[in-house]
Amino acid sequence: MSVVMEPVIVIHGGARVIPGNTAPEKVEQYMLGLKVALESGFNILNDGGSALDAVMESVIFLEDNPLFNAGRGAVYTSCGTHELDAAIMDGRNRNFGATCTVKHIKHPVKLARTIMENSYHHIFSGEGAEDFARKHNLEFVKNSFFDDEDRYKELLKARPDGVIVRDHDLDPGAPKGMGTVGAVALDSFGNLAAATSTGGLTNKSCGRVGDTPLLGAGTFADNQTCAVSCTGFGEEFIKKLAASDIHAKMLYGHMPLDEAAEEVVFKHLEPDSGGLIAVDRKGNFTMPFNTPGMFRAYRTAAGDSSIKIWE
Amino acid sequence: MSVVMEPVIVIHGGARVIPGNTAPEKVEQYMLGLKVALESGFNILNDGGSALDAVMESVIFLEDNPLFNAGRGAVYTSCGTHELDAAIMDGRNRNFGATCTVKHIKHPVKLARTIMENSYHHIFSGEGAEDFARKHNLEFVKNSFFDDEDRYKELLKARPDGVIVRDHDLDPGAPKGMGTVGAVALDSFGNLAAATSTGGLTNKSCGRVGDTPLLGAGTFADNQTCAVSCTGFGEEFIKKLAASDIHAKMLYGHMPLDEAAEEVVFKHLEPDSGGLIAVDRKGNFTMPFNTPGMFRAYRTAAGDSSIKIWE
Repeated sequence: MSVVMEPVIVIHGGARVIPGNTAPEKVEQYMLGLKVALESGFNILNDGGSALDAVMESVIFLEDNPLFNAGRGAVYTSCGTHELDAAIMDGRNRNFGATCTVKHIKHPVKLARTIMENSYHHIFSGEGAEDFARKHNLEFVKNSFFDDEDRYKELLKARPDGVIVRDHDLDPGAPKGMGTVGAVALDSFGNLAAATSTGGLTNKSCGRVGDTPLLGAGTFADNQTCAVSCTGFGEEFIKKLAASDIHAKMLYGHMPLDEAAEEVVFKHLEPDSGGLIAVDRKGNFTMPFNTPGMFRAYRTAAGDSSIKIWE
Repeated sequence: MSVVMEPVIVIHGGARVIPGNTAPEKVEQYMLGLKVALESGFNILNDGGSALDAVMESVIFLEDNPLFNAGRGAVYTSCGTHELDAAIMDGRNRNFGATCTVKHIKHPVKLARTIMENSYHHIFSGEGAEDFARKHNLEFVKNSFFDDEDRYKELLKARPDGVIVRDHDLDPGAPKGMGTVGAVALDSFGNLAAATSTGGLTNKSCGRVGDTPLLGAGTFADNQTCAVSCTGFGEEFIKKLAASDIHAKMLYGHMPLDEAAEEVVFKHLEPDSGGLIAVDRKGNFTMPFNTPGMFRAYRTAAGDSSIKIWE
């Protein structure tokens, strides 16, 4: 297979971010977390690796980083537990793997990929997902492994009112940023892939399934058009089928990627509901959000790179 | 609100059906089951009721009928249990409610609607879904309530090879038909709705989530275009996002309903993978399938009505 494309990777760490007056050393930690995740994925692309491997690698780094709401550092459900969702999609063939409401899987995105590659099924939930993970020797942890003191405080604040929140909705001065994490990439073979992983929303009900593990809602990839990973109030992204609507606008409406993505984020989605990252098959990419900020970063083979939080 | 539309309802009872040489009295039972479900939904429309109430009513009748694979009479998972999925969607506002992998809810479609109307969330899985159901006083049953001897025999046949099957894939002479059930309707106010309910596939893995409870995969409704309910190998309908692709072809590609639905069923979906029912906002409807048959029926206010299995 001939190498024709200049690879590109785009990642996000959530559509609700730390306040603008956050201490510089704190900001630095977030920027560093994004940088490490970005570079780890980009290096795979740069070495001729696949978009699928790249997006998974970036998401694994973000799952491991307690600053972001996925894997370690995930938010709390109303039951005081952590329930994690993740998905991965291969643009070559629309293969898809996802898992929802798992409690003991260290890297949910790895389970999503294992499901995609080793099961006839696409989506596994709860204990069935963990049984599958056990058979495939994925790493298990106690639910308390995901604990984080600041996140727990957020739950305690949210509980009395039954509010369901993304980070900082309740306390603009809180020190921790979070939000779903995700990555999209185009590799040098012209293949697209997307991956997303999340702890969901603080104080979400137990058993709630968000947009992340749903093909077309929070995660999508198809070489015909684009790869997309979303972040925000998942219910809104499910209702609008945000990710695949971009694909449909491109495929049937012949819109360019940025126009399609902006229509979804600024016209269809409720204001202040979230954002997304997307890359098309020519390497064009976009990172629109209708929130005050979104942790995001990109890097192209041509050397163009950026890591941003606000604006 | 003025009454402008001639209402119509279309239902299905699965895309794998009984063999053509089935005893006439057996065939009669299936036809009767479809007829009762059809009339119950149609009567609601005819009395000026909503599409939402109509599709729910029809699906409840099919859930109660052990001949069909939803509610009582659902197929068995590889664990020897029953895990049920259901969804409902309101075309007026794209409100959506769904539940997956529940084991003790007598009418999963009622739970889907209760979620749609009483929760910020759209989808609940497993125990969390049942906790929600308990709080809203839905009817619980033992998992064995869904038992059926013939279905169990199908599981025993499927197990040794690890085959995942729809009805009769293993035994063309088997006496029981099944498959996902669903309904779509247009009411006299011009509103569309869709509902789907299923036991999934015989010998499916525990924790597997099919297309039924996923907006855009197995269930979809939007007054802008159409309402859709799918049946067949759910994984294929998830991968192709079958239901919402019809919507997208209509909305962005300006295709009529039948053309859009046929493209999905005969060009995008794998042969012999299933079928769907769909109605558009003008009352046009279609029932394409790429299997040897599909239990299906429709009735319009003008008096046009039909109940079919094969052809």
